[in-house]
Amino acid sequence: MTADTITAADIRINARWLIPMEPANVVLDHQAVLIQGERIAAVVSQEEADVHFRAKETIDLPDHVLLPGLINMHGHAAMSLFRGMADDLPLMTWLNDHIWPAEGAFVSESFIADGTQLAMAEMLRTGTTTFSDMYFFPEVVAQLARDAGMRAQVCFPLLDFPTPWGSGPEEYLAKGEEFIRQWQDDPFIMPAIGPHAPYTVSDDPLTKAVALSSATGTSIQIHLHETAFEVADALDRSGQRPIARMAELGVLGSTTQCVHMTQIDESDIELLKATGAQVIHCPESNLKLASGLSPVQKFREAGINVAIGTDGAASNNDLDLFGELGTAAMLAKVVADDAAALSAHEALAMATIRGAQALGRAHELGSLESGKLADIIAVDLSDPFLQPVYDPASHLVYSNQGRQVTHSWINGVPQVQEGRLTRIDVPDLMLRVRGWSDRIREQQTS
Amino acid sequence: MTADTITAADIRINARWLIPMEPANVVLDHQAVLIQGERIAAVVSQEEADVHFRAKETIDLPDHVLLPGLINMHGHAAMSLFRGMADDLPLMTWLNDHIWPAEGAFVSESFIADGTQLAMAEMLRTGTTTFSDMYFFPEVVAQLARDAGMRAQVCFPLLDFPTPWGSGPEEYLAKGEEFIRQWQDDPFIMPAIGPHAPYTVSDDPLTKAVALSSATGTSIQIHLHETAFEVADALDRSGQRPIARMAELGVLGSTTQCVHMTQIDESDIELLKATGAQVIHCPESNLKLASGLSPVQKFREAGINVAIGTDGAASNNDLDLFGELGTAAMLAKVVADDAAALSAHEALAMATIRGAQALGRAHELGSLESGKLADIIAVDLSDPFLQPVYDPASHLVYSNQGRQVTHSWINGVPQVQEGRLTRIDVPDLMLRVRGWSDRIREQQTS
Repeated sequence: MTADTITAADIRINARWLIPMEPANVVLDHQAVLIQGERIAAVVSQEEADVHFRAKETIDLPDHVLLPGLINMHGHAAMSLFRGMADDLPLMTWLNDHIWPAEGAFVSESFIADGTQLAMAEMLRTGTTTFSDMYFFPEVVAQLARDAGMRAQVCFPLLDFPTPWGSGPEEYLAKGEEFIRQWQDDPFIMPAIGPHAPYTVSDDPLTKAVALSSATGTSIQIHLHETAFEVADALDRSGQRPIARMAELGVLGSTTQCVHMTQIDESDIELLKATGAQVIHCPESNLKLASGLSPVQKFREAGINVAIGTDGAASNNDLDLFGELGTAAMLAKVVADDAAALSAHEALAMATIRGAQALGRAHELGSLESGKLADIIAVDLSDPFLQPVYDPASHLVYSNQGRQVTHSWINGVPQVQEGRLTRIDVPDLMLRVRGWSDRIREQQTS
Repeated sequence: MTADTITAADIRINARWLIPMEPANVVLDHQAVLIQGERIAAVVSQEEADVHFRAKETIDLPDHVLLPGLINMHGHAAMSLFRGMADDLPLMTWLNDHIWPAEGAFVSESFIADGTQLAMAEMLRTGTTTFSDMYFFPEVVAQLARDAGMRAQVCFPLLDFPTPWGSGPEEYLAKGEEFIRQWQDDPFIMPAIGPHAPYTVSDDPLTKAVALSSATGTSIQIHLHETAFEVADALDRSGQRPIARMAELGVLGSTTQCVHMTQIDESDIELLKATGAQVIHCPESNLKLASGLSPVQKFREAGINVAIGTDGAASNNDLDLFGELGTAAMLAKVVADDAAALSAHEALAMATIRGAQALGRAHELGSLESGKLADIIAVDLSDPFLQPVYDPASHLVYSNQGRQVTHSWINGVPQVQEGRLTRIDVPDLMLRVRGWSDRIREQQTS
């Protein structure tokens, strides 16, 4: 590029700091990001941008740090309508007496639509630009995310038993295959296969899920080794650890996302390494449900990719991925017995480039680099209680909450501006949420 | 009280919900709190308030929950100026290469004043009305808290070696005794004795600290069993666990606050029970420095009082006690292997009535009851991402951050109104903070 070349851009963002994520462990000062159409045209110094670019619109963010939009790799979006409905209960009481009865009574297309929109609003507002969902009526979730311009991996559910979405494995797989074919070429929606867990899906449907994944090139996401009971019970029944059974059935592979992964021994790590499977860490859910501690640092040392998710709002109880990063980074240290484990930069990578890698889309998502899709967020560090600022990465992980996010763009389109959502009508959404909560409250107390 | 009795009050606060903390596990609807002078005159239904009270000023909080002001039982306030300066480092590297050199270079009366004011501003804004401090120049901290109208337990430091505040134990104890005499009758300031830790204070000054505590009726706060190294090293050197040595020296007692308390065995619990000593839990600091896991549920089951603290901003990295409560409640579950351990209400109690008990002031602080001092906060639950609201206590602990605090009163005096601090000039404070951080940044990179 010579001094007299002037390139046109749609948007220029000037920011005090920029964390590109690639290269790793870097904080750049006084950068400009140029967006042209749906992609990042350049990440350059503001001086260089002055010389080489002319943008239609310039946004100055003098106290802000720019980073790639966050990727929330595990959740059940519509469960936001159950936020705080039942806490501080043993897992089986929580499921049997609260979650399952409420799901049985309320889960429908309209429940999924309103609950998912509430979750998307919270995720967008707190810096997430791509989310993964595993719940009912995936076709509703996919259409809603597409309409809102949000990226989503949407896993259709697969279980041995009937649910509001279908009568059993055969119907789930048939509807799921149709769902995949409908969405697989969409730039925003990544359809995927969501077998619930080893203890809720038999060998036959799991084998068919693997075949469908191979035939269509789609990912599998499964809850795996969530609790000590799951592992002990499987050993009692079959003498085999759940992860070993998954490997035997061909479920593990580089496009498979294993969610939770507490209760891990060396053989589990070897299987993950050998198959290239992805780990999705959900620290707050693991704590709150007393599921166990995931050995994140061990996974990382073994070269296993670890991304991060909030899980659903019923077991978290928020979808703020920045809060989750703080918990992840702090918890990893005590689990590894090493205060240097999972640094702030490494935690941010889990929520950006490592999430993109888990989705198989690291070539176009997860970092701020020329040519990548323009999924970008800005976080305001001018708040008095984020002062002083020695290291923006530290503040993002250890001191920040998602509410400090002021701007986000997905595919070059603004989603949050000055802290306001541009594409979701929040007051209208709140009316619908109130309607659901009134009915749910009545059902829970009856 | 008959229907025709009308009582005058200064302030009436009408709130959608109220969590009195005493009685425990209760959420009341549509309550009014009446404040007369520095005390709570009544907590009654809004209907009853209409009939029996006339207030000079009425504040309507239709989407808010009222609860007692939070009590942050452990911190090093002025370390807020080191927030995020050095993270993700092994404890001794962090101390030797960053914290101690920075303290040596900067700690002075004016550093303590500006750093403490930054910490007080953050604590007030996020719902804390009483804090405990253990750092240098306690006389500066006490005067600042008094001037701001904030309640504080201020522990003067006691160590074997010289610091910016004194030449050694003899001087610390002499200055400390004078400090106690100056402040011990103040309604806002609770002077206390702060021996740093078993490994930094010898038997002789500890014995003198115990004598001073007995003579003046002041509390002792000490870092105890913070790390596995501390316990192992003491066992190596003396064959005795640090807590056993403290018991032998008379340091443990009902007015003694033991901070951190990880690495606990049955003998430790027996000593705490026998002496009535208080435990101060700092979960985020324990995680971030990889110190260990405190068995909060075991302490509680043994009848030991457990309060909570954020520790300093250099190892946390914020002073938001609501965030700390979420971490405490989630972490206690996985540590106890019981999702029912440390409920949301019990976590709130740790930050209110149990903190008051640790200070020996449960008769006048820590709950919303007629006759108690009017230390009160209001949290706005109308935020879209706190919806739906099934249980305000759950939201306060698991979904909320301190920024949702909109109002606070200490001793009946407003400290936060509509989210703004009334008694600290934040823009002026930010100028002073910037001055310090410029110098600290230079020192750290030189």
